[in-house]
Amino acid sequence: MNIDLIEAAAKQIKGHAVRTPLLNAPLLDETAGRRIFVKSECLQKTGSFKYRGARSAISAMDAGTRAQGVIAFSSGNHAQGVALAASEQGAPAVIVMPRDAPKLKIDNTQAYGAEVVLYDRATEDRDAIGQELAEARGLTLIKPYDEPQVIAGQGTVGLEIAAQAEDQGVDAAEVLVCCGGGGLTSGIALALAAKAPAMQVRPVEPEGFDDVTRSLRVGARQTNNAMSGSICDAILTPSPGKLTFPILQEHCGPGVVVTDEEAQRAMVAAFLRLKVVLEPGGAVALAAALFHGQGDEDVIVVASGGNVDAPVFQAALDRFG
Amino acid sequence: MNIDLIEAAAKQIKGHAVRTPLLNAPLLDETAGRRIFVKSECLQKTGSFKYRGARSAISAMDAGTRAQGVIAFSSGNHAQGVALAASEQGAPAVIVMPRDAPKLKIDNTQAYGAEVVLYDRATEDRDAIGQELAEARGLTLIKPYDEPQVIAGQGTVGLEIAAQAEDQGVDAAEVLVCCGGGGLTSGIALALAAKAPAMQVRPVEPEGFDDVTRSLRVGARQTNNAMSGSICDAILTPSPGKLTFPILQEHCGPGVVVTDEEAQRAMVAAFLRLKVVLEPGGAVALAAALFHGQGDEDVIVVASGGNVDAPVFQAALDRFG
Repeated sequence: MNIDLIEAAAKQIKGHAVRTPLLNAPLLDETAGRRIFVKSECLQKTGSFKYRGARSAISAMDAGTRAQGVIAFSSGNHAQGVALAASEQGAPAVIVMPRDAPKLKIDNTQAYGAEVVLYDRATEDRDAIGQELAEARGLTLIKPYDEPQVIAGQGTVGLEIAAQAEDQGVDAAEVLVCCGGGGLTSGIALALAAKAPAMQVRPVEPEGFDDVTRSLRVGARQTNNAMSGSICDAILTPSPGKLTFPILQEHCGPGVVVTDEEAQRAMVAAFLRLKVVLEPGGAVALAAALFHGQGDEDVIVVASGGNVDAPVFQAALDRFG
Repeated sequence: MNIDLIEAAAKQIKGHAVRTPLLNAPLLDETAGRRIFVKSECLQKTGSFKYRGARSAISAMDAGTRAQGVIAFSSGNHAQGVALAASEQGAPAVIVMPRDAPKLKIDNTQAYGAEVVLYDRATEDRDAIGQELAEARGLTLIKPYDEPQVIAGQGTVGLEIAAQAEDQGVDAAEVLVCCGGGGLTSGIALALAAKAPAMQVRPVEPEGFDDVTRSLRVGARQTNNAMSGSICDAILTPSPGKLTFPILQEHCGPGVVVTDEEAQRAMVAAFLRLKVVLEPGGAVALAAALFHGQGDEDVIVVASGGNVDAPVFQAALDRFG
């Protein structure tokens, strides 16, 4: 993995992915006591950054393999990104999703033209289901994060942050990133190390699913005890990736852990101040900026997605709106 | 009024106003049966396009007059735009607001540093209150729409649409604009007449407050019977402006009228598909695109604002989410 691969991905996705805005709101700054810039990947196609990595990975396939089709496992955002990127590039897509994934994510994945195969997290083996389908149909697996082309695609967020922060006169800042398996965080960290080395990237995770934070602390890949039990469904992954972890180790500062309640409060702040819709997992970095900040340095937050079912959004507004 | 004034305003607000994105979502296009591009002014500073006109008007004042202060009448979006633009440029601001304006809008106007004077729409004379304050303190009135510098500021939305549509390969389209007094609509119409003459601008209004639509139809300024009774508080104005109406007549196609229910449905579509928060009045143009469209031509929608109280947003999600 290096910056050249990320710059090549940027060329591949140009004109397809949205160059999402780096938003700022004076009243949000006032609450936080420092300037907060929000890279709003909820405004990306399919409602999350995942489209970037999917588009990048599918673009990089040879035409014959691509035409046979792709397969992915995902609770929803990678699912939608792969479904749309595949459909745009003429590749059939099969997405294996847990039956308890948010309804909006399942519906949208189908609407983007993918075949959705549902499984039960408790009783069925996702990998076995996927492997059987892949072999039977000659599908190529698009991994959600532990794949160089995917990391490169997500890293284009970092290239944009470097340019947009410079336009705003910001050259040094903490960059807080919502973190599951580390594809987005490692891609951004690589891009910023090359383009804006005074930026310090830090992964942000939900309480109880802090595998990356613990792994960085002890210097070896740690695993979460559970795979459910937080509203932040988008970023509940078992452990940092084999590829992503060394990059996180080399380039990132310590992790930050936030509660589900803090994520809900951040969703409400985004609604009131920024006028963007964030899903719980897409709001944890903003939560870290609002509730775990120190000092008055500028902070850049990556709001990674906005695919939230209406009742979950309403619950946050009911509690903190 | 001419394009030079709009281009001058664009220079004045550059680096202050957000160049808001022109968003698009494949699943929204699918629902509508045509491509919909949404110029998302809810992502503008203060949550609506009104900041542009306010910044432009206050920039154009001479320094001495500006230092004495400004005054504005507004139910909320112009209020916030003037409050922030004044505060940024060191001008004291007094905003006269109806007591029944959305709470978020009153709170924010104060938070941006303005002095808010509340009045009762039914029993008090807004203009008398304002005139007394203006004379006593030497304040300059910043009108909400019938003022060349304000129209020029709002017209910068049109310059951006022309450039962004070209980037997307769109040179001809219907451009639907949420319309109150016509400042935004006339500014955009002027800008597009100069920069993208194949675009056809059409004002969109809520049912019962269709003064502009009727005025365009009969060729003379018409007045609404009421000033309340729609959830679209941001765009309930008595009649088109003296300055704005001739521009609308020269450059705009027929108006479109939507129901409050259609505005709510559009708010939900924006939540689900675009991940942006729209207030009812800021959603009427999207409602027109979704529910009053004809043919399969591309349509550009100006989503003018997102300052909505949580209960109003939740009501829309409850009904149609």
